[in-house]
Amino acid sequence: MRVNGDVADSISIRDRGLLYGDGVFRTMLAEQGKLRHWPSHLKKLQQDCQALGINCPTPEQLAVELQSILLAHPQGVIKLIVTRGQGGRGYAPPAVQAPHHVWDVFPLPEYPEEWRKQGIKLRLCDVRLSHQPRLAGIKHLNRLENVLAAAEWQAADIAEGVLLDLEGNLIEGTRSNLFFVRGGHLCTPDLSRCGVAGVQRERVLSWAASRGISVEMGHFPVEALAQAEEVFLVNSVIGLWPVQSFQQRRWTDFPLAFEVAEYLAGAHE
Amino acid sequence: MRVNGDVADSISIRDRGLLYGDGVFRTMLAEQGKLRHWPSHLKKLQQDCQALGINCPTPEQLAVELQSILLAHPQGVIKLIVTRGQGGRGYAPPAVQAPHHVWDVFPLPEYPEEWRKQGIKLRLCDVRLSHQPRLAGIKHLNRLENVLAAAEWQAADIAEGVLLDLEGNLIEGTRSNLFFVRGGHLCTPDLSRCGVAGVQRERVLSWAASRGISVEMGHFPVEALAQAEEVFLVNSVIGLWPVQSFQQRRWTDFPLAFEVAEYLAGAHE
Repeated sequence: MRVNGDVADSISIRDRGLLYGDGVFRTMLAEQGKLRHWPSHLKKLQQDCQALGINCPTPEQLAVELQSILLAHPQGVIKLIVTRGQGGRGYAPPAVQAPHHVWDVFPLPEYPEEWRKQGIKLRLCDVRLSHQPRLAGIKHLNRLENVLAAAEWQAADIAEGVLLDLEGNLIEGTRSNLFFVRGGHLCTPDLSRCGVAGVQRERVLSWAASRGISVEMGHFPVEALAQAEEVFLVNSVIGLWPVQSFQQRRWTDFPLAFEVAEYLAGAHE
Repeated sequence: MRVNGDVADSISIRDRGLLYGDGVFRTMLAEQGKLRHWPSHLKKLQQDCQALGINCPTPEQLAVELQSILLAHPQGVIKLIVTRGQGGRGYAPPAVQAPHHVWDVFPLPEYPEEWRKQGIKLRLCDVRLSHQPRLAGIKHLNRLENVLAAAEWQAADIAEGVLLDLEGNLIEGTRSNLFFVRGGHLCTPDLSRCGVAGVQRERVLSWAASRGISVEMGHFPVEALAQAEEVFLVNSVIGLWPVQSFQQRRWTDFPLAFEVAEYLAGAHE
């Protein structure tokens, strides 16, 4: 655990990340001493910082720190938070910003192996995502909607919940991006009004583009999932989970999902 | 500065307040060794904690800590944060919660005295507030919308900005609640879909009720301000600021605002 480059496990109570959720983060996977898809994560981190007007630490600084973390923790989930730094009282960002950044490491989660192979059970969340075009897509620290959603169920056999927006459009999982196949088309929700546009979502889109597979990005009602030939979720820790059940619908074959999963698992960076 | 009762100025990097903005807060005024309207702040803190399913520290514990803070800092702005406490990785609240709470103290802000007497300049913010009924009214730590709004202007003579929701309804100031008088009626925005319902807003509503003054709480377009006889903003630090200018409109007389200001400044608790 490091704060601003130094080994530490605490941060100022005046950090604007705590005070206002004024920051962004990445959740990444380390395997065999390497961070999976670091260039993509770094790019997204920089984009998210820029969207909030936060000065992102330099790639060189982050790379040096990451190397020493990977030496000590060759395997695990690595989290990186960048906040706008110290704030006094008041919402206005300070004229001179000195951002803080925090590294943390967690053991790999132990998900049942069959979730990758036979698929997961997916539920529908009650809480709906609000529309905020100014923050949509950004992986920022204002995550109370996700907290409310994840608090809705305890059943350990339900791996993930799907979130709709206030208008009833499909958006994402509580901690993953959503794809489905309908009429041979790959579909994924538009995230210009809410949701987090994750690195693995972008990789799926690149994969589709490179294979000439058309992707429909739009507003879909929840009923679209029942009509889908395949449904799957992606994020940087789980990789890809096909969905075996949602509401009354069951799926047993995941040909396209498995193809995507193989791509995502590959070392393409 | 205290964290969980102990003198400290830092908090765990695994505090869910930092990770997700998973907490609530109060900003309060200490004068002559007393905290203004502590019972109202405590009640609102408890309500906000309950709305998020966070166990609020006991009134007894908070009172003891507050007394020692007031001894050292008889005057200033006192901030109290309550978070859901330590979290591992993952949005779901831990089964056993051990909330954290943080006290911090700031010097009284030095606002120009004429802002209370002649009124302030108010601007219209570009950023719009999203609708989230599940979080509306709560003073939680997801405050990026307020940060974006406060970042919109630097001019020191503009004291506050007014925020609309995505539909264009008046909601609040970036750090205050909004009232206006129209046709002799006191009006204030409905906060059931967004905004923070502050303690001073509640006190104004009580004041109006006790005097038989009807209050219209509803959805008002921004044009309603131009038609208003008086406009004013309230919060626990500023008390009340009448508005002297907004867009093309100017105001010079604030009879009702001054009456409310006198009430708010009184020691009613």
